[in-house]
Amino acid sequence: MALLAEKTVSGREYKVKDMSQADFGRLEIELAEVEMPGLMACRAEFGPAQPFKGARITGSLHMTIQTAVLIETLAALGAEVRWCSCNIFSTQDHAAAAIARDSAAVFAWKGETLQEYWWCTERALDWGPGGGPDLIVDDGGDATLLIHEGVKAEEEFAKTGKVPDPESTTNLEFQMVLGLIKESMKVDPLRYHRMKERLVGVSEETTTGVKRLYQMQASGTLLFPAINVNDSVTKSKFDNLYGCRHSLPDGLMRATDVMIAGKVAVVCGYGDVGKGCAAALKVAGARVIVTEIDPICALQALMEGLPVLTLEDVVSTADIFVTTTGNKDIIMLDHMRKMKNNAIVCNIGHFDNEIDMQGLETFPGVKKITIKPQTDRWVFPDTNSGIIVLAEGRLMNLGCATGHPSFVMSCSFTNQVIAQLELWNERKSGKYEKKVYVLPKHLDEKVAALHLPKLGARLTKLSPDQAEYINVPVEGPYKPAHYRY
Amino acid sequence: MALLAEKTVSGREYKVKDMSQADFGRLEIELAEVEMPGLMACRAEFGPAQPFKGARITGSLHMTIQTAVLIETLAALGAEVRWCSCNIFSTQDHAAAAIARDSAAVFAWKGETLQEYWWCTERALDWGPGGGPDLIVDDGGDATLLIHEGVKAEEEFAKTGKVPDPESTTNLEFQMVLGLIKESMKVDPLRYHRMKERLVGVSEETTTGVKRLYQMQASGTLLFPAINVNDSVTKSKFDNLYGCRHSLPDGLMRATDVMIAGKVAVVCGYGDVGKGCAAALKVAGARVIVTEIDPICALQALMEGLPVLTLEDVVSTADIFVTTTGNKDIIMLDHMRKMKNNAIVCNIGHFDNEIDMQGLETFPGVKKITIKPQTDRWVFPDTNSGIIVLAEGRLMNLGCATGHPSFVMSCSFTNQVIAQLELWNERKSGKYEKKVYVLPKHLDEKVAALHLPKLGARLTKLSPDQAEYINVPVEGPYKPAHYRY
Amino acid sequence: MALLAEKTVSGREYKVKDMSQADFGRLEIELAEVEMPGLMACRAEFGPAQPFKGARITGSLHMTIQTAVLIETLAALGAEVRWCSCNIFSTQDHAAAAIARDSAAVFAWKGETLQEYWWCTERALDWGPGGGPDLIVDDGGDATLLIHEGVKAEEEFAKTGKVPDPESTTNLEFQMVLGLIKESMKVDPLRYHRMKERLVGVSEETTTGVKRLYQMQASGTLLFPAINVNDSVTKSKFDNLYGCRHSLPDGLMRATDVMIAGKVAVVCGYGDVGKGCAAALKVAGARVIVTEIDPICALQALMEGLPVLTLEDVVSTADIFVTTTGNKDIIMLDHMRKMKNNAIVCNIGHFDNEIDMQGLETFPGVKKITIKPQTDRWVFPDTNSGIIVLAEGRLMNLGCATGHPSFVMSCSFTNQVIAQLELWNERKSGKYEKKVYVLPKHLDEKVAALHLPKLGARLTKLSPDQAEYINVPVEGPYKPAHYRY
Amino acid sequence: MALLAEKTVSGREYKVKDMSQADFGRLEIELAEVEMPGLMACRAEFGPAQPFKGARITGSLHMTIQTAVLIETLAALGAEVRWCSCNIFSTQDHAAAAIARDSAAVFAWKGETLQEYWWCTERALDWGPGGGPDLIVDDGGDATLLIHEGVKAEEEFAKTGKVPDPESTTNLEFQMVLGLIKESMKVDPLRYHRMKERLVGVSEETTTGVKRLYQMQASGTLLFPAINVNDSVTKSKFDNLYGCRHSLPDGLMRATDVMIAGKVAVVCGYGDVGKGCAAALKVAGARVIVTEIDPICALQALMEGLPVLTLEDVVSTADIFVTTTGNKDIIMLDHMRKMKNNAIVCNIGHFDNEIDMQGLETFPGVKKITIKPQTDRWVFPDTNSGIIVLAEGRLMNLGCATGHPSFVMSCSFTNQVIAQLELWNERKSGKYEKKVYVLPKHLDEKVAALHLPKLGARLTKLSPDQAEYINVPVEGPYKPAHYRY
Repeated sequence: MALLAEKTVSGREYKVKDMSQADFGRLEIELAEVEMPGLMACRAEFGPAQPFKGARITGSLHMTIQTAVLIETLAALGAEVRWCSCNIFSTQDHAAAAIARDSAAVFAWKGETLQEYWWCTERALDWGPGGGPDLIVDDGGDATLLIHEGVKAEEEFAKTGKVPDPESTTNLEFQMVLGLIKESMKVDPLRYHRMKERLVGVSEETTTGVKRLYQMQASGTLLFPAINVNDSVTKSKFDNLYGCRHSLPDGLMRATDVMIAGKVAVVCGYGDVGKGCAAALKVAGARVIVTEIDPICALQALMEGLPVLTLEDVVSTADIFVTTTGNKDIIMLDHMRKMKNNAIVCNIGHFDNEIDMQGLETFPGVKKITIKPQTDRWVFPDTNSGIIVLAEGRLMNLGCATGHPSFVMSCSFTNQVIAQLELWNERKSGKYEKKVYVLPKHLDEKVAALHLPKLGARLTKLSPDQAEYINVPVEGPYKPAHYRY
Repeated sequence: MALLAEKTVSGREYKVKDMSQADFGRLEIELAEVEMPGLMACRAEFGPAQPFKGARITGSLHMTIQTAVLIETLAALGAEVRWCSCNIFSTQDHAAAAIARDSAAVFAWKGETLQEYWWCTERALDWGPGGGPDLIVDDGGDATLLIHEGVKAEEEFAKTGKVPDPESTTNLEFQMVLGLIKESMKVDPLRYHRMKERLVGVSEETTTGVKRLYQMQASGTLLFPAINVNDSVTKSKFDNLYGCRHSLPDGLMRATDVMIAGKVAVVCGYGDVGKGCAAALKVAGARVIVTEIDPICALQALMEGLPVLTLEDVVSTADIFVTTTGNKDIIMLDHMRKMKNNAIVCNIGHFDNEIDMQGLETFPGVKKITIKPQTDRWVFPDTNSGIIVLAEGRLMNLGCATGHPSFVMSCSFTNQVIAQLELWNERKSGKYEKKVYVLPKHLDEKVAALHLPKLGARLTKLSPDQAEYINVPVEGPYKPAHYRY
Repeated sequence: MALLAEKTVSGREYKVKDMSQADFGRLEIELAEVEMPGLMACRAEFGPAQPFKGARITGSLHMTIQTAVLIETLAALGAEVRWCSCNIFSTQDHAAAAIARDSAAVFAWKGETLQEYWWCTERALDWGPGGGPDLIVDDGGDATLLIHEGVKAEEEFAKTGKVPDPESTTNLEFQMVLGLIKESMKVDPLRYHRMKERLVGVSEETTTGVKRLYQMQASGTLLFPAINVNDSVTKSKFDNLYGCRHSLPDGLMRATDVMIAGKVAVVCGYGDVGKGCAAALKVAGARVIVTEIDPICALQALMEGLPVLTLEDVVSTADIFVTTTGNKDIIMLDHMRKMKNNAIVCNIGHFDNEIDMQGLETFPGVKKITIKPQTDRWVFPDTNSGIIVLAEGRLMNLGCATGHPSFVMSCSFTNQVIAQLELWNERKSGKYEKKVYVLPKHLDEKVAALHLPKLGARLTKLSPDQAEYINVPVEGPYKPAHYRY
Repeated sequence: MALLAEKTVSGREYKVKDMSQADFGRLEIELAEVEMPGLMACRAEFGPAQPFKGARITGSLHMTIQTAVLIETLAALGAEVRWCSCNIFSTQDHAAAAIARDSAAVFAWKGETLQEYWWCTERALDWGPGGGPDLIVDDGGDATLLIHEGVKAEEEFAKTGKVPDPESTTNLEFQMVLGLIKESMKVDPLRYHRMKERLVGVSEETTTGVKRLYQMQASGTLLFPAINVNDSVTKSKFDNLYGCRHSLPDGLMRATDVMIAGKVAVVCGYGDVGKGCAAALKVAGARVIVTEIDPICALQALMEGLPVLTLEDVVSTADIFVTTTGNKDIIMLDHMRKMKNNAIVCNIGHFDNEIDMQGLETFPGVKKITIKPQTDRWVFPDTNSGIIVLAEGRLMNLGCATGHPSFVMSCSFTNQVIAQLELWNERKSGKYEKKVYVLPKHLDEKVAALHLPKLGARLTKLSPDQAEYINVPVEGPYKPAHYRY
């Protein structure tokens, strides 16, 4: 691999696009700190005790300004940190530069190739001869995946002597994962085993990554404890919903400047992400149509005045298409060929398999005209009609804009910090087995509470009498576990 | 007790306000049937097999037009039914008349006294010498409460010979419960025991009633299985939210004709009910302020642009106050004395203890001017300033308007029918212990699915490949248990 | 005519439904006064000088609680008042009773026949031998029409000796107008001429009535000065828009209890009234479709996310239809026959010719089932499918609910009071010719200003320097005449 | 002046930032054409006849992608065009490059100094020895101002021999205008007179520019006919309202990435621009507070649920401040010093005097930290607290984002094309005097109609009978002149 990490004067490794953007990154980090009260409160509350003293944390999570504040919070609590992005387009290069210069080992830049992407991931996991990280902060689960695949391959090799064969799969990205492990095994056939040994646990923050973890738990293959941060209320009902409500129109505007008012927009999926997207488009004046598989979510859409139809019903009349499903094969080549000229197609779900980019790219005679980075017009040869695809079908809010805003990410990331603390503090207690856990409700409520003063809110206090009447402690938690908010 | 039930020509007991309204009730029931596709689908699917053949069902649930469709659905499935309302103001007299005449034994009228209320409840539970009902449909838990208190008193009597003493409590309503049981014990000291024996289970549909059930489960005093219908997604996220969004402004307008636009409205509590109320007031042009104890719900309010303050902060400047908490002692006399002239005060939570009506009624010199039924102006003698209290502090949407509309009640009530079927079908299997259960997700999804065609919705179907990818069956359920919608 | 006016003890004439409702009416009038700050401010500002001393005012305007406050404001300024309603269903009987008992001669009740309606109008105009009123407060223009037709007929009679022939028209209502004039001419062939002589002017407040006035001005047939109150900004952009946003859902809910969320609603016309209706339905969760003839209004609807289609496009799939056009023949029999079972059809425009009631009533075999007053189900014999028509096609917000709320009517009626004052004060100055005028902008701004304190608003004051920069007086008016708000 | 225009190979003058961006500009122009149906329809309808053959058009209007489509539409109708921007930050350099290369003489780049700005304006007006342009397309009125000041100075010189003295004013920008004229007079003391002679007229599209024109009309100093395009309904009620609803959040997000949800935002002014801004902020989840001088606009804000307060009331608690007034001295230094740390301050009104930038810049010890171009943090020395000012107090939507989206600008610019056509076609008929005119309503309706098909709308057609009933032609115009939409 021709890629080489560089080193700061202090000797810390990094690979970023342009170190000269560090000052600009620092300015934006300082602005973000004011908007991230939860993280700043963690620094104030936990910083003095240095609870992460001695802990090595690897993060695989969009390397943005907001993430920079997270990284520096982990560092402020005593951790050593290595970081990569979890999406080839989501890095903000000035954020990466500032962190690389000032705080942690960063391997990330906007516009990585897939090969570069996995190289970065592997770099972030490589803490040298003594093994891997103690803790992982994951988003989408790629760092976790690499370790699990590495361990699997090493086991196979120990048993049968066989090394992984990239040719054994047609999935391009998975070929790279296998190639990476294969290379690694040449040097050290027990590297991922040692990583696994050392690992105290992972905290994961996406619907998609969590799904993977539960599948591994179900099949008994999960190698270390995991905390499902995604299902903290202060994550899934905030970042997914309010974050996307903010960042979907932001991405659309920056990429295309299209007027949303008056347009017909299709939102595929009406989970938390879809709800945020549909709300944003509706209030901007679009006529929003929802596609759903789940009758409950479908009925919710209807109650909000949104028709529920199939993609086939509307594919030739809509102007904007957004996928939010977390599933695959949502908008296929055949759909795209039926769309109106200059229909906009984008994905805000974690993975890039919601839109059939491969079908599009390999359609005979198709022409790709790049308007600007992450905004491409694809023209079909037979009709001379084109569609506009954002961020090559990947996360459009991070590819075309700057992702979710600081305030809501402060909620998500405060959950991450608390989850990491929990894993680390309980590393020897046996509290966490090789299973997936959610944070207890009082911590969830704490995350929310840390964000109220910034918005000038004043909570009402329960009297002991009232608390007894509704059978909760005066100081909370206030709701039963199954409460849906 | 001077109250006497009457009998129809066919010999069925009833006590309603005015039997001559039966035709009017029938016309509105027929309209409602078109709006309640879930219940009608149950009739079509289950009716022919008569699954409730032989089952006696007692309901304690607002005797409205929508409930009439529920009752006739239970009857269409083979049940015998006796019914009372669960609120002194919530009966629609024409609905009660139509049902009493045509379908079931009804004991309910709008404007019962508390004494009459409990007489009705006891009548609905009285199936004659052979014991009580097989099943209870409950709303708020008063029917369940009466049986539990009855059994407790009978046990005490068996042990100590002591009969219940109404004077032992200062709570007026509880005095009546004890009085009723005392009377009953004179006739038959094992009546409630026999009821308990026969009872297969209860399905309960309010936040408040469910809270009681979980408390009894926790203390080991629950006497029969219970299905928590309230926490079906298609109940709590629909009826509570969208129902109140509809019926709060409806109640306000019918009671006061007040222009909501331009006013300052305070919503106490931001759970599902509070969310629905706040949304309705906001879109009608009010400036809405939320009070909350729970930091998570508070942060949700803020994300929707609603300030979170304490009641004290705003009590003297707001125009409309709505309690939605399910807790007690929310708006107290002292608050009311500080309000603007003609401030409107109302409650949409299940019980009437959110507003300090007793404090108001007993304030020296206070004058109550009834504008029209359920709309009273209370004038304080010192300031000559008055406030307008709706439905005497009880459920204002049922007291001042007609409650939730048919369509959303069809969701709730289809859950009730399915829960009753489940309890009845499994009565001998031992599947349900003396615990509180929620309906399985596939039934929840079914309830939603039954309501889609009426709204012209078309669901997308998962391919087997997609289903496998997200690890769910093609036909659902589509979400993990902890999913919040 | 068998109708006879009654007299109060003080000798004032009246004809109302039920004088015993006067106390109830008084209570609601007192509530409304608190919500009508503009009218109350007029009483405070002008009352002491008694500017209407000696003036006779006839009003033809929905006899509601709000109108009661208007009438008593006119009286408080010194006027003698006679009143009738301008719609057969819009009278609130308790309001009529209170005014008849306490303040003015009222001829109005809910549910007049057309014949009774015109009798009432004629009564309100009859001030005895000395001629008619000095001033008219008109809504829809029927009082103005009657005088104009009377004068025309008397002229014809003077010229040709011919009396009006009711058989000369097929329009039922116009037959009654002619019949009334014919009767009157038998007694006094110059009665309407004397009315005309005395009349100082009329102030008219509806789009529809104003249209008639401009037509008469254009044809040179207007008999006295008119002030177009409808086009005060504080009327047309408030009452029409915010009033209907409030009263349309109010009427729908009271009449049908239908859940608006999830439904498809068609709003015919997107003027101020249509904008208010569409906004209300949209925020209640309906999918709203607009029909329009005007491309500008159509484009406004699209910018708000509302599709613009023709009635034919949607007639068989929508659930709710509302006409707001001010035009005729909008929803015809053929449309209604294509609608879904139990589709709701209603009109919120001034006149009852938007919906083809005559076509419906005369369709062979059609069955009218009255659910409750103003809510009828019409069943077609061939399909056995029915539609629900509100208020017999007349103003549904007044027929099925209580019309616009007090606060917004205070804006409209304060314009009326100011217009009446202007006409009366300038009656000898020659300022007003036989033309249609709008109120000057500073009076429009004054009306708004009188309503701000009630809502806690604080205006910013222009500095002299700023006022000069934007070239307006410091104290206003602040906008050029063509400004659209 | 050291600035020098360059020339294309074809000999056309220009001065832009970077000609290599022309291809990128062309791609975006092609996208915009699909979104600007009104302009493209003008090309189709009028292009073949080449009505502007021989006409020289000078434009002073933000040199954006949308303006590029306008320029090429004018050219497609036969005109020769010279162009400058009307704001130092609003040029999109790729748009300028594409037009300079392909279609017209352009003098514009993003980030001009004030001196450069006026040089560009003068260049755009300079058509060589034969005098100036035949027509002006103006935005804010700077091109019109320069000619009027030039003529005034030349007259003064002719009378008194005095040349303009830049030192006679303290207004920096006006010093430059006078300096420019002074230089010009050295070369040719009748240059602006000749321009005036040739000029057929100007069409102006901003509230601000129109205000200037009416002032000149009132004082009798207007030198040529003007068409007020701003007050076409399809301009002021679309571009101002829906354009700002789109571009305000766009600018905020691009400049600061701030989460709008949860914040307190103050909108100064509730005209069309303010209404659009307030709506956008509200639906994004902000708590919006309005400041107003006009009681009518204030009451409108209240009806939408927005409190109306003074800036002083909220200056220390709000997070975001937007000026939209068209007036001066709205947010002064003293206000800014009281704001919270990192409060965001921006202006979306045409001129840059709404925010006291001069007061800020000259405050002793203040520090300006540029986060990125057009986003500056100003730190006060005493508190170390800072505020964030966007686009140096100028139009933030053009300075920080890309201005209004194509579709709504197509409405505005189609008005411009039609106004220019009208002026040119009637140049010899005497139809237009030295006054300010608005376009007739049927042209306004035509502009709207041209934009409906793109959005899939279907208009209803009046029957002759209906048209007669409401007294309008079947084909429109449909509303009286005073109608407010």
